[in-house]
Amino acid sequence: SDNLEVIVKAFSSSFVIPDFRGFCHHIEEIYAKCLTNTDGKAAHYIPQLARANPDHWAVSVCTVDGQRYSTGDVNVPFTLQSCSKPLTYALVSTMYGTDHMHNFVGMEPSGRYFNELCLDYNNKPHNPMINAGAIMTAALLKPDLSAADRFDFVFNMYKRLGGGEYLGFNNAVFLSEKECADRNFALAYFMRENKCFPEGTRLHETLDFYFQLCSLEITAESGALMAATLANGGINPLTGDPVLTVDAVRNTLTLMHSCGMYNYSGQFAFKVGLPSKSGVSGCVLLVVPNTMGICLWSPPLDSNGNSCRAVQFCMELVSRFNFHNFDNLRGHFTSKCDP
Amino acid sequence: SDNLEVIVKAFSSSFVIPDFRGFCHHIEEIYAKCLTNTDGKAAHYIPQLARANPDHWAVSVCTVDGQRYSTGDVNVPFTLQSCSKPLTYALVSTMYGTDHMHNFVGMEPSGRYFNELCLDYNNKPHNPMINAGAIMTAALLKPDLSAADRFDFVFNMYKRLGGGEYLGFNNAVFLSEKECADRNFALAYFMRENKCFPEGTRLHETLDFYFQLCSLEITAESGALMAATLANGGINPLTGDPVLTVDAVRNTLTLMHSCGMYNYSGQFAFKVGLPSKSGVSGCVLLVVPNTMGICLWSPPLDSNGNSCRAVQFCMELVSRFNFHNFDNLRGHFTSKCDP
Amino acid sequence: SDNLEVIVKAFSSSFVIPDFRGFCHHIEEIYAKCLTNTDGKAAHYIPQLARANPDHWAVSVCTVDGQRYSTGDVNVPFTLQSCSKPLTYALVSTMYGTDHMHNFVGMEPSGRYFNELCLDYNNKPHNPMINAGAIMTAALLKPDLSAADRFDFVFNMYKRLGGGEYLGFNNAVFLSEKECADRNFALAYFMRENKCFPEGTRLHETLDFYFQLCSLEITAESGALMAATLANGGINPLTGDPVLTVDAVRNTLTLMHSCGMYNYSGQFAFKVGLPSKSGVSGCVLLVVPNTMGICLWSPPLDSNGNSCRAVQFCMELVSRFNFHNFDNLRGHFTSKCDP
Amino acid sequence: SDNLEVIVKAFSSSFVIPDFRGFCHHIEEIYAKCLTNTDGKAAHYIPQLARANPDHWAVSVCTVDGQRYSTGDVNVPFTLQSCSKPLTYALVSTMYGTDHMHNFVGMEPSGRYFNELCLDYNNKPHNPMINAGAIMTAALLKPDLSAADRFDFVFNMYKRLGGGEYLGFNNAVFLSEKECADRNFALAYFMRENKCFPEGTRLHETLDFYFQLCSLEITAESGALMAATLANGGINPLTGDPVLTVDAVRNTLTLMHSCGMYNYSGQFAFKVGLPSKSGVSGCVLLVVPNTMGICLWSPPLDSNGNSCRAVQFCMELVSRFNFHNFDNLRGHFTSKCDP
Repeated sequence: SDNLEVIVKAFSSSFVIPDFRGFCHHIEEIYAKCLTNTDGKAAHYIPQLARANPDHWAVSVCTVDGQRYSTGDVNVPFTLQSCSKPLTYALVSTMYGTDHMHNFVGMEPSGRYFNELCLDYNNKPHNPMINAGAIMTAALLKPDLSAADRFDFVFNMYKRLGGGEYLGFNNAVFLSEKECADRNFALAYFMRENKCFPEGTRLHETLDFYFQLCSLEITAESGALMAATLANGGINPLTGDPVLTVDAVRNTLTLMHSCGMYNYSGQFAFKVGLPSKSGVSGCVLLVVPNTMGICLWSPPLDSNGNSCRAVQFCMELVSRFNFHNFDNLRGHFTSKCDP
Repeated sequence: SDNLEVIVKAFSSSFVIPDFRGFCHHIEEIYAKCLTNTDGKAAHYIPQLARANPDHWAVSVCTVDGQRYSTGDVNVPFTLQSCSKPLTYALVSTMYGTDHMHNFVGMEPSGRYFNELCLDYNNKPHNPMINAGAIMTAALLKPDLSAADRFDFVFNMYKRLGGGEYLGFNNAVFLSEKECADRNFALAYFMRENKCFPEGTRLHETLDFYFQLCSLEITAESGALMAATLANGGINPLTGDPVLTVDAVRNTLTLMHSCGMYNYSGQFAFKVGLPSKSGVSGCVLLVVPNTMGICLWSPPLDSNGNSCRAVQFCMELVSRFNFHNFDNLRGHFTSKCDP
Repeated sequence: SDNLEVIVKAFSSSFVIPDFRGFCHHIEEIYAKCLTNTDGKAAHYIPQLARANPDHWAVSVCTVDGQRYSTGDVNVPFTLQSCSKPLTYALVSTMYGTDHMHNFVGMEPSGRYFNELCLDYNNKPHNPMINAGAIMTAALLKPDLSAADRFDFVFNMYKRLGGGEYLGFNNAVFLSEKECADRNFALAYFMRENKCFPEGTRLHETLDFYFQLCSLEITAESGALMAATLANGGINPLTGDPVLTVDAVRNTLTLMHSCGMYNYSGQFAFKVGLPSKSGVSGCVLLVVPNTMGICLWSPPLDSNGNSCRAVQFCMELVSRFNFHNFDNLRGHFTSKCDP
Repeated sequence: SDNLEVIVKAFSSSFVIPDFRGFCHHIEEIYAKCLTNTDGKAAHYIPQLARANPDHWAVSVCTVDGQRYSTGDVNVPFTLQSCSKPLTYALVSTMYGTDHMHNFVGMEPSGRYFNELCLDYNNKPHNPMINAGAIMTAALLKPDLSAADRFDFVFNMYKRLGGGEYLGFNNAVFLSEKECADRNFALAYFMRENKCFPEGTRLHETLDFYFQLCSLEITAESGALMAATLANGGINPLTGDPVLTVDAVRNTLTLMHSCGMYNYSGQFAFKVGLPSKSGVSGCVLLVVPNTMGICLWSPPLDSNGNSCRAVQFCMELVSRFNFHNFDNLRGHFTSKCDP
């Protein structure tokens, strides 16, 4: 019954990607092309990530009307890491509204490194996609619950984002993150000194919660569903579950667009022009608004901390299709196709 | 004959804004609402701008299929100032290609003030929308021509962007800009020290040229045509003249989106979500990609240097229509209309 | 028998200040003049300091040959706060040598605020007079001892610096410091992230130890003896106890001279030209090298965090006597006297 | 008759260095030791400096009572470069007083590079030893005179500082400096934008004047006399000419002490503890206050821009003699001698 919407669409032939088979052929070609890319190496700041298999490479697509295509290691679990940032941000914005959220965190690219020890002109973290802002976002989510209930709550919400597909928790990664977290502790104390947190925030518990969010596990398949939920205005395209508000989704996509790829964000916005978020596990959540969500995963990272194969995939994708945010859709002079 | 395309469209009833009359009614309402806003004051760094009449307020719209609507002081000339930055950038990118252009200037928001004395991690100006980057852009445009021929050339190109409508040059503003340009001289010398310029660049002549570009005059009506050319993939919607390449337009819109509104750019991308560029004369060029260009003008500026009435107008516009870059177009839960 | 040296000197009439009585008359005059100064207010970041009596004002002098003069509230205890920094630095330098010490901390003024979250070009804290450097200094002192033995050890060393006179510990201040220490925690985590600490450093224990050092109590009288020990090349002038090495003292005086008065250090070096260290309790340790140590104490602070009365006292002192580091001692044109 | 003072002293046997012959023997030893140091290379930003002979090495000493000793290439002329900064500062402070001078320039080490594009918290250049501050100092000196008269005036003052010994002007260096001065132009425009200059300052003329000061030529011998004038409270020790006020000298020595050796200043104050100023020609003016002036010259520079041989010489000197600012003079435990 979850797939009812898809079946209805299929019969009415009004899919957002009319020639989905042709489209998948392109995806397969790009996948193969990127597979030969052996640049980069896995994150090494914690042993659990350093041990990742550099050959893993997965691509999974889910359109807003529920068509899916997956290729590669799409059922191998990996941790979300920074890819949890836009998801938690979207949940908190849905639960408490944009205004409450942005009383505590800004909405500007920082022009600095993602873990820079500085606040913006209003003494807030620059945005929810950098560590300081993501710690703050975690602080806002159900702060009155016990640690266990809080985790249960957020786990359930993430589960709904992924339409009930695979979601796990990697305790070894969590414990390692916690041990290697000097900068995050420094950020949290610095923010507390600057009275950034809401009153009553428990600092160590908040950091623990933040590390837990980073240690949630998905597969490329379940990740594609989460991205598709963002592409679809907050409604999971398979279950029809309205997990996020339209406003929360708009805000999330805006910030993924400007701040999602670490220090490469500006160039990514320029060259790819799609909202995305990268994590050090080698994951990239890519959103083609109103069209589809894509989850890319391959552990080797470039010097900016983005998966080499995933970035290459994105470039190839927009060179073939008119998905760039500011692509001209009226077809003057262009060789790109509208799938 | 210029309007031939429009007539053809009219008969075929396939306009991008089917109910243009209803849309204009909204524009008129928003115009009236903003008229009562008496916040801000005119730029005062040069006397010619300080003397501006704070009551001036103009809105002019031109769709990609050439429908137009104008209200207020739409035939009063004003100088482009920083609104010349995206236009010159688009011309240079069209003439020499993206790669040549970005050998000399970056593509990232700077996270700093628009006239900050600093370069990015590659020792280039951060982007073409801040002063340093715009001086660099000017340096690249036909550097071998004499000063007079160079001005003639660029004047003619701007004229084509505006479909042959009003374009002037305010010599008093030019002379004042030149006299009050200590920061720009400092920026230029700093860039020359860092070997940013192409070999053979004549520094004082380049600055003069840059000040001349800032001193070009438009009206809200001719400005709307320039914005519409950007909305229409580089083809002027009235004349059909292909002034800019599709790539140059995509790049320009991307940078207007992330860096167009000074230090308010991040918030504007978040709240309005449309490419735009602001100038201290009180002008804002606003682009709804694939749909329309809008020129807004009113001299009183807020503390970020953006026209108070123009910013309010943009906010109102996206609260009524689904123009935000990341608005959900599939109509879940939304009260916004699709015009 | 402790005072034997003084008696010997007295009989041999070779004191460093031959007319000590006349000199004390000047001190008394300056004391009275500063007493009328009611500028500033006590540090308020912890309640224990905020409650200080603003009328307290004490001056105590001890020459390198043991002559003493005290006036005002010279027997009221107060906490050392940042005045502990040069003392701990001198002790650690004596115990482990200059090279070991400066493997972990720099020797340059930072040009920033005393608690700035940044490291120098070598990724070390800038110097031992700012918080980061002082936390590092504490980390180096007997790291293998238990917390209790470590405190006992350092208490005993401070006691020797002060010739056995008053030394206490204010536990309420210690507990408050610890509670209001977000910035210091941020600094410590930031340094640990940058691998600044020697291997095996226990971060929380080090911070505790640092807060304990700040919470040691002296009186102006015992403080003057500590300053006099620095003036006298490390030998306590009353007991003859060689507490510090000559090298440690030279290094300490150099850094007190360039970095001792927070952001006023450069101006203090310029106008007063004597090594000194200030603490937020309102204490200033002032050293006239080879001549005398002076302890000044009055709680109201100026905007730089230095005691208002103490700074005024220093200015007056060098306007009367040729104590400035770079005063011309050959008597050309000068109206200053050589006491 | 110029040497009258020396003769009088000689007969009265009260020289500041009683065993001058023994002292010179040490100087000769250190000279020879440094001669074997072939580290570093000459400044290369202008060809005239890059062509310097790396074998040149000169040391000249002049005591405050006029005893002299010179060894090496002491009669080869070289340009003062940044060594002109303390001299011009001392002249301007003598002519207009400390207060006027420091209305326009600060007195703090900057913690930044010598040519950094930034101002201090009061929007002034940080101090007169960095380029921005030295340009400002030049602006203050006789601004109403014609360019020619201004140069004549300052040439005459420098001549008096050097007791009438060699002073020249290197026009080729001046012309090169002017051509390679992008950063200095940027600094000057940045300061003008910030309204740092006194009203009526002619910017290009001021920069020309500053480049001329940098292009003045001395020899090690005449330079030693200039340094000795600073050591002697402003009175040239050979001519008895009171060129500078005591206050100007004290201020100059204070700033040379904290800011004289570029980014090595803090370490130099720590390790050598003597006021000094370095220039990119390889010159160092070293002052032992109340005792002697020393001029060192050798073109090869280290990465901080200080002459390698000169820095080594300074280190050796203070390891043998108790000249460090904060050396203990009372002879506890020390192996250093008092010459």
